[in-house]
Amino acid sequence: MLIVMKQDATQADIDRVNEVIAELGFQSHPMPGAARVAIGITGNKGAVDRAHFENLSGVADAIRVTKPYKLISRTLSPDKSIIKVGDATIGGDELTMIAGPCAVETPEQVFEVAEVVSKSGARFFRGGAYKPRTSPYAFQGRGEDGLKLLAEVRDQFGLNIVTEAMDERGVDLVEKYGDCIQIGARNMQNFSLLKYVGKTRKPVLLKRGMSATLDEFLLAAEYIMAEGNHDVILCERGIRTFGNHARNTLDLSVIPAVQKMTHLPIIVDPSHATGKNYLVNPMAKASVAAGADGLMIEVHPCPEDALCDGAQALLPEQYIELTAQLRLMRELTIPVRETASI
Amino acid sequence: MLIVMKQDATQADIDRVNEVIAELGFQSHPMPGAARVAIGITGNKGAVDRAHFENLSGVADAIRVTKPYKLISRTLSPDKSIIKVGDATIGGDELTMIAGPCAVETPEQVFEVAEVVSKSGARFFRGGAYKPRTSPYAFQGRGEDGLKLLAEVRDQFGLNIVTEAMDERGVDLVEKYGDCIQIGARNMQNFSLLKYVGKTRKPVLLKRGMSATLDEFLLAAEYIMAEGNHDVILCERGIRTFGNHARNTLDLSVIPAVQKMTHLPIIVDPSHATGKNYLVNPMAKASVAAGADGLMIEVHPCPEDALCDGAQALLPEQYIELTAQLRLMRELTIPVRETASI
Amino acid sequence: MLIVMKQDATQADIDRVNEVIAELGFQSHPMPGAARVAIGITGNKGAVDRAHFENLSGVADAIRVTKPYKLISRTLSPDKSIIKVGDATIGGDELTMIAGPCAVETPEQVFEVAEVVSKSGARFFRGGAYKPRTSPYAFQGRGEDGLKLLAEVRDQFGLNIVTEAMDERGVDLVEKYGDCIQIGARNMQNFSLLKYVGKTRKPVLLKRGMSATLDEFLLAAEYIMAEGNHDVILCERGIRTFGNHARNTLDLSVIPAVQKMTHLPIIVDPSHATGKNYLVNPMAKASVAAGADGLMIEVHPCPEDALCDGAQALLPEQYIELTAQLRLMRELTIPVRETASI
Amino acid sequence: MLIVMKQDATQADIDRVNEVIAELGFQSHPMPGAARVAIGITGNKGAVDRAHFENLSGVADAIRVTKPYKLISRTLSPDKSIIKVGDATIGGDELTMIAGPCAVETPEQVFEVAEVVSKSGARFFRGGAYKPRTSPYAFQGRGEDGLKLLAEVRDQFGLNIVTEAMDERGVDLVEKYGDCIQIGARNMQNFSLLKYVGKTRKPVLLKRGMSATLDEFLLAAEYIMAEGNHDVILCERGIRTFGNHARNTLDLSVIPAVQKMTHLPIIVDPSHATGKNYLVNPMAKASVAAGADGLMIEVHPCPEDALCDGAQALLPEQYIELTAQLRLMRELTIPVRETASI
Repeated sequence: MLIVMKQDATQADIDRVNEVIAELGFQSHPMPGAARVAIGITGNKGAVDRAHFENLSGVADAIRVTKPYKLISRTLSPDKSIIKVGDATIGGDELTMIAGPCAVETPEQVFEVAEVVSKSGARFFRGGAYKPRTSPYAFQGRGEDGLKLLAEVRDQFGLNIVTEAMDERGVDLVEKYGDCIQIGARNMQNFSLLKYVGKTRKPVLLKRGMSATLDEFLLAAEYIMAEGNHDVILCERGIRTFGNHARNTLDLSVIPAVQKMTHLPIIVDPSHATGKNYLVNPMAKASVAAGADGLMIEVHPCPEDALCDGAQALLPEQYIELTAQLRLMRELTIPVRETASI
Repeated sequence: MLIVMKQDATQADIDRVNEVIAELGFQSHPMPGAARVAIGITGNKGAVDRAHFENLSGVADAIRVTKPYKLISRTLSPDKSIIKVGDATIGGDELTMIAGPCAVETPEQVFEVAEVVSKSGARFFRGGAYKPRTSPYAFQGRGEDGLKLLAEVRDQFGLNIVTEAMDERGVDLVEKYGDCIQIGARNMQNFSLLKYVGKTRKPVLLKRGMSATLDEFLLAAEYIMAEGNHDVILCERGIRTFGNHARNTLDLSVIPAVQKMTHLPIIVDPSHATGKNYLVNPMAKASVAAGADGLMIEVHPCPEDALCDGAQALLPEQYIELTAQLRLMRELTIPVRETASI
Repeated sequence: MLIVMKQDATQADIDRVNEVIAELGFQSHPMPGAARVAIGITGNKGAVDRAHFENLSGVADAIRVTKPYKLISRTLSPDKSIIKVGDATIGGDELTMIAGPCAVETPEQVFEVAEVVSKSGARFFRGGAYKPRTSPYAFQGRGEDGLKLLAEVRDQFGLNIVTEAMDERGVDLVEKYGDCIQIGARNMQNFSLLKYVGKTRKPVLLKRGMSATLDEFLLAAEYIMAEGNHDVILCERGIRTFGNHARNTLDLSVIPAVQKMTHLPIIVDPSHATGKNYLVNPMAKASVAAGADGLMIEVHPCPEDALCDGAQALLPEQYIELTAQLRLMRELTIPVRETASI
Repeated sequence: MLIVMKQDATQADIDRVNEVIAELGFQSHPMPGAARVAIGITGNKGAVDRAHFENLSGVADAIRVTKPYKLISRTLSPDKSIIKVGDATIGGDELTMIAGPCAVETPEQVFEVAEVVSKSGARFFRGGAYKPRTSPYAFQGRGEDGLKLLAEVRDQFGLNIVTEAMDERGVDLVEKYGDCIQIGARNMQNFSLLKYVGKTRKPVLLKRGMSATLDEFLLAAEYIMAEGNHDVILCERGIRTFGNHARNTLDLSVIPAVQKMTHLPIIVDPSHATGKNYLVNPMAKASVAAGADGLMIEVHPCPEDALCDGAQALLPEQYIELTAQLRLMRELTIPVRETASI
């Protein structure tokens, strides 16, 4: 932490800051400048709370210098993580494709999409049995029956199941029936739920909150890992801005930023990010070009009859065309692995 | 819903839209304009999903016209609600003051603040026993021991206790020890938790999410009310924007907007909204001037030693001065009650 | 500036940073910490460009410590400025009221409103002769004829005229006919125009840009003052956020923040900030409660016939009622002047 | 426009709305629904001002249905525009590369970069002679001398010059020395300047404002075209959000959205959008994958000595590597041209 004193701070003000630093057991490093004094703090193990200084007389600002990251940090684990999910992996050279309908509706719908997804070469199937809906009067998902249908998809098509849990009961059931527990954007800072999935042994797909900074996103992953579960996959799904031509603003620069700071894989959900069918294809390609480890895409055989978010689902033929395009693009952008990984 | 056709939409496109409207059991009202056709939809009970239309050939836009509100709506309950919390009320003529430390730390700290709060005339005490912290390594609250301390404050000072629950266990404990269950901004769309508190019989203080629109905020309240608990108090606590001179941007225009649309009371938390001591006083006054039903304010005897958010806490003497100013201001702005309420 | 080195930075990396600091003629202050080294820089007169350091090997971050403010700074001019505008002042104890129609339309409209504004006790009249409109096909203002009408208002009612200029020709004309040159939000970073008004001798009302941070807002004022014109009045008019219940989000916390950092007066335009008639009254009161030096309010005798922004204009009777309320509120919130000012 | 009446609107309210519609010379189309009445308006040539209706008794909302676009609209010009700039074109099959330093500094710097840019196969050179800087004390550009240097670059290397003008004098000089007039993000709604460049005969590169919606961006282009200059190239350069890992948030979904609505070409500036060297390469690739017509990239031989924005400039060797990658990627994503264009 760096304490910046006001131009008119007195020597007594500076002495008091130094005293507080000493009381906390840290070292102070005063730097007298032309116009004002700055005081560096070292010797702290974790983050120093700015509140210790911000309201002291003569203090202009207290600036945080280091980040409170541990387990997610690339400094500690320089190799990129490859996460095992069911009988496949996420984070390696192969582009991860997770596709399926927004919500599990009927066996016919689920199996029709699963067949398309399976034939296209994807290893993962998505579909919500519990749906976080803005209105309490909107369709809330099929619940455990939906999860059972997803388990049948795995048995029949060999696809690994990624599906959302919204509470502890949901986590228990997804652990039982699925292969990867999705934590939705609205629960990214539901810290109780993060701790709970941190105690499971299933990999977790963590979606970025609608207004989460990079720091908050990474610290949400740190919450899960701090409980012992290190198998976390990050997912960018658009942030909330003033923009109104798409449902959210897809923030692709977060991909290289995440990859610089952490060893965790990051995928993109262009369907929820854009909310519009015609934007999914170009944003999927842009995600791969930016270095994403994979994509999560909604596919529906009959979007106009979908119970949830039909406007953004690709038709099966659109999805198949997209996967072919992505395969070529992945060859151009596959990340060079600087250090060996298992 | 209004369907706007493209300028080059064919008659077949229009016919298909009319067909889909008929299949859904609604009535269509075509309006041929100079350049394009628009088609109104009536006969629907709730919201119509745009997905039915958005990807049909020839459709330019599908515009939602009515809002999916029921229980919160002022149309249904024109009288403003007055909510009973412990032995006091929120939403009536008296300005509600909820004050106390950010987190429950020690008995000394809690009782010292409680004495100040009680003497100032407030009827409510706040203090967190469970703290949602961005980092898993930050102080997470005293838990049930903290709640017991808060219950002692009620017994000793006659203050009603408002405190946060982050999960179902927390709700059960706050129901046992406290008077009002606070749902934090990060859990505003934790729909499982909203449903759970909707089943309790304690009033709920619902904080606006950091990037929640007015609609999303009101529908979160609707989630609680739809389960049977109609005692919901809304709380504006700042939204996330590009601004960086305060922690969040306090959105005071939401007060009259909420009051126009719903009968629920709304209070403001200027401490969390601004994150800075010197901004709390002016923003508290502005909240009352804008018509807020009350305020939630952090007070700490020694902010530089606070375990959490000390930078924004008022000193006891600052808090006492503020309450005197607010009392005068309330007299100028007390809302005229157009219809009788109990 | 503070340079934070990476944990794995080598001594050679550190030496190179020290070299660059020396090359620039500054002093370096290395602070070895437990995990990493930080290097303070002193001896610089103005801001140090981060680019000198950000891409050097081993550098994790380059953090700016001091702000590039000069003339606006309260450190240099501790007394609050009182700006003379025509035959009145802005920034003193009296609440400034600037009222009038959005756009100058007809003599009847202008004089009808001017009579109301004058009788209410305001000293300033507003009205646009040049209108910045999003669409090129929308009404663009009456131009010089509009300015002549405004000059007649001054002659007839003794009101000082505040009106917008959008380019150099406009500035020349407003200088000729008006008393205060308004620079609109869309031109807040039109640096050529800022320099041009900086050379005039008329006071300038500078509106905050829709996405301007506090720093950018203050530096826009610094642009004007750096050219010699120190008579700048700041105006908050709402920022752009995801919120959609009002046209913009009025950011009232900027008032105390501005007053802490600068000696310039700040007023609020709740009409443009909210875009809705029913929000103007509560937001005007909140602005005064937060310490604003004045308000800019749109008034129109027949809003549904207004050529521009009618939805937000107050009716004359609404405006008169509001001014009475604001007068009482101002008495409660009038800022205590710590030091003498002329 | 669609007028939505309140549930408790009276027949007199509805009659008054119909009257106003008739007074304006339009047709009204009432649609009685289960709970409320909606009234469609047709017969209008341009946009209807909501102010005519929003404050009428019984009106809940006035919803705009059609957009005030004319010249930019794809409905009128279904073929994509190919814009001639100097002796090259923008908008065709070839990916446009505009590269060069942020600011023109010295002849050595300019020629060194120009040689790299020319050898890489680009047809356009960028470099600012007039720099919009947040602080009045930052380097403001070399002015006309800088433009003369750019003209020499064209003569010597055959590169077409794209450079910013900040006011009318600047436009005149860029017209004289350059090939394409750049309007910066801060001037996107400087309507006087837009009209002025609309009267020149040089193509205009229009950058999106930091908080411009798609509508506002397109209407800024419409301003230029309405004056007779149809040679407009749009440029996405990042929008302002709460995000802080990059300088701005690059909004790539605007590319397909622009291409759906208008015939104008759109390029991307990943250097200003991200502000960080390591983000430029992935974001440039993502832009091409999303379908951008070109890129604008900053290159500097010695970024740590740059007078402006060095942190984001690519080194010459980084730029050369990037262009090779982009060439391969363009082949995969080149847009299929549905209709013939000259």
